[in-house]
Amino acid sequence: MLIVMDKKATPEQVDNAVAAIEKKGYTARPIPGGERVAICVLHNHGPVEAGHFLALSGVKEAIPVTHPYKLVSRELKPEDTVIDVSGVAVGNGHLMMIAGPCAIESEEQALSTARLVRKAGARMFRGGAFKPRTSPYDFQGLGEEGLRILAKVREETGMPVVTEAIDHEVFELVEAYADVIQIGARNMQNFSLLRRAGKASKPILLKRGIAATIEEWLMAAEYIMEGGNPRVILCERGVRTFAHHSRNTLDLSAIPVVRKESHLPVIVDPSHAAGRRDQVIPLSRAAVAVGCHGLMVEVHRAPEQALSDGAQSLYPEQYEDLFRQIEPIFNVYRQFGL
Amino acid sequence: MLIVMDKKATPEQVDNAVAAIEKKGYTARPIPGGERVAICVLHNHGPVEAGHFLALSGVKEAIPVTHPYKLVSRELKPEDTVIDVSGVAVGNGHLMMIAGPCAIESEEQALSTARLVRKAGARMFRGGAFKPRTSPYDFQGLGEEGLRILAKVREETGMPVVTEAIDHEVFELVEAYADVIQIGARNMQNFSLLRRAGKASKPILLKRGIAATIEEWLMAAEYIMEGGNPRVILCERGVRTFAHHSRNTLDLSAIPVVRKESHLPVIVDPSHAAGRRDQVIPLSRAAVAVGCHGLMVEVHRAPEQALSDGAQSLYPEQYEDLFRQIEPIFNVYRQFGL
Amino acid sequence: MLIVMDKKATPEQVDNAVAAIEKKGYTARPIPGGERVAICVLHNHGPVEAGHFLALSGVKEAIPVTHPYKLVSRELKPEDTVIDVSGVAVGNGHLMMIAGPCAIESEEQALSTARLVRKAGARMFRGGAFKPRTSPYDFQGLGEEGLRILAKVREETGMPVVTEAIDHEVFELVEAYADVIQIGARNMQNFSLLRRAGKASKPILLKRGIAATIEEWLMAAEYIMEGGNPRVILCERGVRTFAHHSRNTLDLSAIPVVRKESHLPVIVDPSHAAGRRDQVIPLSRAAVAVGCHGLMVEVHRAPEQALSDGAQSLYPEQYEDLFRQIEPIFNVYRQFGL
Amino acid sequence: MLIVMDKKATPEQVDNAVAAIEKKGYTARPIPGGERVAICVLHNHGPVEAGHFLALSGVKEAIPVTHPYKLVSRELKPEDTVIDVSGVAVGNGHLMMIAGPCAIESEEQALSTARLVRKAGARMFRGGAFKPRTSPYDFQGLGEEGLRILAKVREETGMPVVTEAIDHEVFELVEAYADVIQIGARNMQNFSLLRRAGKASKPILLKRGIAATIEEWLMAAEYIMEGGNPRVILCERGVRTFAHHSRNTLDLSAIPVVRKESHLPVIVDPSHAAGRRDQVIPLSRAAVAVGCHGLMVEVHRAPEQALSDGAQSLYPEQYEDLFRQIEPIFNVYRQFGL
Repeated sequence: MLIVMDKKATPEQVDNAVAAIEKKGYTARPIPGGERVAICVLHNHGPVEAGHFLALSGVKEAIPVTHPYKLVSRELKPEDTVIDVSGVAVGNGHLMMIAGPCAIESEEQALSTARLVRKAGARMFRGGAFKPRTSPYDFQGLGEEGLRILAKVREETGMPVVTEAIDHEVFELVEAYADVIQIGARNMQNFSLLRRAGKASKPILLKRGIAATIEEWLMAAEYIMEGGNPRVILCERGVRTFAHHSRNTLDLSAIPVVRKESHLPVIVDPSHAAGRRDQVIPLSRAAVAVGCHGLMVEVHRAPEQALSDGAQSLYPEQYEDLFRQIEPIFNVYRQFGL
Repeated sequence: MLIVMDKKATPEQVDNAVAAIEKKGYTARPIPGGERVAICVLHNHGPVEAGHFLALSGVKEAIPVTHPYKLVSRELKPEDTVIDVSGVAVGNGHLMMIAGPCAIESEEQALSTARLVRKAGARMFRGGAFKPRTSPYDFQGLGEEGLRILAKVREETGMPVVTEAIDHEVFELVEAYADVIQIGARNMQNFSLLRRAGKASKPILLKRGIAATIEEWLMAAEYIMEGGNPRVILCERGVRTFAHHSRNTLDLSAIPVVRKESHLPVIVDPSHAAGRRDQVIPLSRAAVAVGCHGLMVEVHRAPEQALSDGAQSLYPEQYEDLFRQIEPIFNVYRQFGL
Repeated sequence: MLIVMDKKATPEQVDNAVAAIEKKGYTARPIPGGERVAICVLHNHGPVEAGHFLALSGVKEAIPVTHPYKLVSRELKPEDTVIDVSGVAVGNGHLMMIAGPCAIESEEQALSTARLVRKAGARMFRGGAFKPRTSPYDFQGLGEEGLRILAKVREETGMPVVTEAIDHEVFELVEAYADVIQIGARNMQNFSLLRRAGKASKPILLKRGIAATIEEWLMAAEYIMEGGNPRVILCERGVRTFAHHSRNTLDLSAIPVVRKESHLPVIVDPSHAAGRRDQVIPLSRAAVAVGCHGLMVEVHRAPEQALSDGAQSLYPEQYEDLFRQIEPIFNVYRQFGL
Repeated sequence: MLIVMDKKATPEQVDNAVAAIEKKGYTARPIPGGERVAICVLHNHGPVEAGHFLALSGVKEAIPVTHPYKLVSRELKPEDTVIDVSGVAVGNGHLMMIAGPCAIESEEQALSTARLVRKAGARMFRGGAFKPRTSPYDFQGLGEEGLRILAKVREETGMPVVTEAIDHEVFELVEAYADVIQIGARNMQNFSLLRRAGKASKPILLKRGIAATIEEWLMAAEYIMEGGNPRVILCERGVRTFAHHSRNTLDLSAIPVVRKESHLPVIVDPSHAAGRRDQVIPLSRAAVAVGCHGLMVEVHRAPEQALSDGAQSLYPEQYEDLFRQIEPIFNVYRQFGL
């Protein structure tokens, strides 16, 4: 924390600020500048609450200098984390391809889609059993029946399955069936869910909130790691901006930043960012090119009949096509690195 | 829903779109324009999933025409809803003044602050017992001990108390103690929490999410009303934008829009929007002037010692000053209406 | 500027950064912290280019500490600036009420609207002669004919007139006719126009760009003041956010911030922010309540016939009504200050 | 335009709206729905001003259905436009690689950098002679001397040169020297500059404004084309959002949307979007992968000595490295298309 004093702050005000800092147990180091004094706050363990100092007279600003995350930080653990998902590795040097429908609608729909994406090359299957929906009148998912269908998909195709735990109540049930438990964008700061995830026996796929800074996203992962579960996969899925030509704006610059700040693997979901099918393949190529560790793409056997998110789901033949396109791109990353 | 066809869409493609609309049970009414055909979708009950139609060949866009909310809508219930909170009315013609610290820190802190805000004119007391914090290393609230202190504040001062239920687990406990249960901005789309709130015996204070549209906010209220609880108080508390001179950008234009679209009362929290004390009084005046039904303001007996949000808490004497300022402003609204 | 080093930066890297800072003529003061070293950059005249230092090895971040503006800053000139506009004062203790149509369409339209707003209480008249339009196919204004009509309005009603100079080419012409020259939101960083405004003999009304930070806005005013024209009136008119229930989001928290940072007067244009008539009166009340120095409101004799922005123009009787509402609100500000 | 009536609109209000539409010379086609009436507006030439109709009683919303652009639209001209820049083609099937420093600082700096990027594979050289700067105290470019240096670079290396015309005053001078005239992000809605560009004899590189929608960007191009200059190259360079880990958020989903809506070529500037060197190569790969027609990248012989934007400039050896990386990625696009 750097405390910036007003130009006209008196020596007494500076002394007073120094005393307030030291009363908190930190070290204060005043820096007399040409125009004003700034005071460095040192020896703090954990983040410093700016409010303590902004309240003091003569203080103009309090600027945080360091990031509050620890366990997720690459400064703490320099090497990439590679996460094992039921025998499939997610992390450095691996491109994890996850595909499937937005929601599990029936055994037939799930299995037929799973066979098609498996054949195209997918290594993991996704599908929602519990769906967070903006409207209480929309289809909310099949619930446990959906989870049973996912287990059947895994059994038949050998693909691990990822599905969302939308709340604490269904967490245990989802944990029993899923290979990876997804925490959705709307729940990124549902701290009790994050704590529960910290105690889970399965890896967590943590989506970025639609208005979350990278620091907030990494702090959400910190909650999970601090709770005892080191297996966190981050997932960028677009942020909300003034632009409305896509549902959200896919923030690909987040990938190199996350990879520099953290050792955790990070994948991209272009389907929810785009919200429209015709942007999914270009954005998938871009996501692989920027250096992510995997893609989670919505594919539906018959998108025009989907009960949710049909507009953004790829046809199976498009997913095959996508596969052919990204392999040479991923090879560039494999050869050159970030 | 209005389906806009490509300029070059063939008659077959138009027929095909009409057939797809009618297969869903809706009525399709094609409108041949000068340059292209548009198709109105009629007789839908509830919202239409755009994806069904965007997937069809020849379709360029699918534009939603009506809003998906029902129970919260002023079209359904034209007169203002007035909510009784333990004998205090929130809604038309009443300015509900809620004040108190960000978090309950001790009985002494809560009671002394409560007495001061009561004396200044506050009608309801706020204070967090369970705190949602970005960092797992920050102060998380006193829990049930905080709730007991709130009950004591009510007993001593006669003010109803509002406090946040941060998750499903603590909901029942909060419900037992609080007069109004707050759902925070981060939980605005925590749908299982909203469903639980729909079964609560107490009124709900529903904060707007930091990146929520008004439609999403009203749909969150719809979840609560649809669950059986008609007593919802909306609360604007700023949205996230590119601007960083305040913590969030207080969106006061939301107030007239919400009041036009919905019959529910809507209050403003200037403290969380601003994040800095020196903006709280000006924004409070503006919020009353724009036509809200109340203010929820953070006040702390000694802000520089607060365990959270000290930078934005008013001193008790500032809160008294605020009271003197808003009364003549509220009288303008009382005389002229929106 | 504060240079933050990597946790693992070597002493050589720190020395190297110090040398680079001093080579630029600044003073470097390294602060060894618990975890990492930070280096304060002192004795810089004007802003420091972060890029110089981010390029150095071992440097993690470069955090600006002070603001780059000087002439507009309240630190330089503590007392409020009051600007005389042809005998009408804009600034502290005065509420400047500007009204008129978006565009001058005819002498009859301008004069009849001017008489009505004058009667309601307006002190200054606005109207565009040159219109910046998103589409080349839209009405672009009457040009010099519009300016002549404005002069006639001034002659007949005694109100000074404000109109926009959309480019360097028309600036001289506008300067000859107008009492206040407006620089529009789209031109806020048209630096050659700002330089020209710096040489103008008339006060400048400088609108905030739709995505401008307060610092960028004040720097635009700095261009004008640095060019020699100290008479700058700032105008907040909404910023672009994800929210679409109003055309732009009126950022009223900007008013207390600008008034703290700068001595220049600042007014609000609620009409362009809202884009819809039914938000204009509530937002006007809020703008006065927050502490602005004036309002610029679009009023049209017959909005449904307006050639531009009819949807947001008030009817003359609404403007009269607005006047009655804001007076008691402004009195609150007059009594209590910011 | 679709006019949506209130649920309770009376038949008289509907008739009145129909009459108002027809008075403007359009055709009105009312669509009685289950809950409310909507009215389609047909046979309009050019965009319809929503304000005309929002002002009518009983009207709830006015929803634009078609886009206002014509000449830039792919509906008008289905095939890709390929632009010849002094013998170098920009457009379909070509990856235009533009590189050079932010600003021309000296002949030596420009020539040495040009030789290095030419050797790496660049086909066009960029460098600012007139610089738009947020602060009047910052380096503003060498002016005509910079243009003369650019001409020398072209002469020696054979590369066409692109440089910015920051205002109308310098346009003619820039036109005399440059092969491509850049209009910067801040000037995207400087309509008099766009009109001047419409009369230019050279191709225009039109950057997207930091808060511009795709429609506004294409309308800016429409101004240039409508003025008589069909040679417009679009350039995405990031938009302003709440996110601050990069200077702006590069909006790569804009590329497939622009390419679908328009026939004009579109390139990407990752340097200004990122603002930090370590994001430039990943974002460049992503931009090529998403399907753009070229990259404009800042490269400086010695970034740590640059007078502007040093933090985001690549070292020459990094640019060589970038070249090796994007070629296989561009081949994917060449083989598969968008």
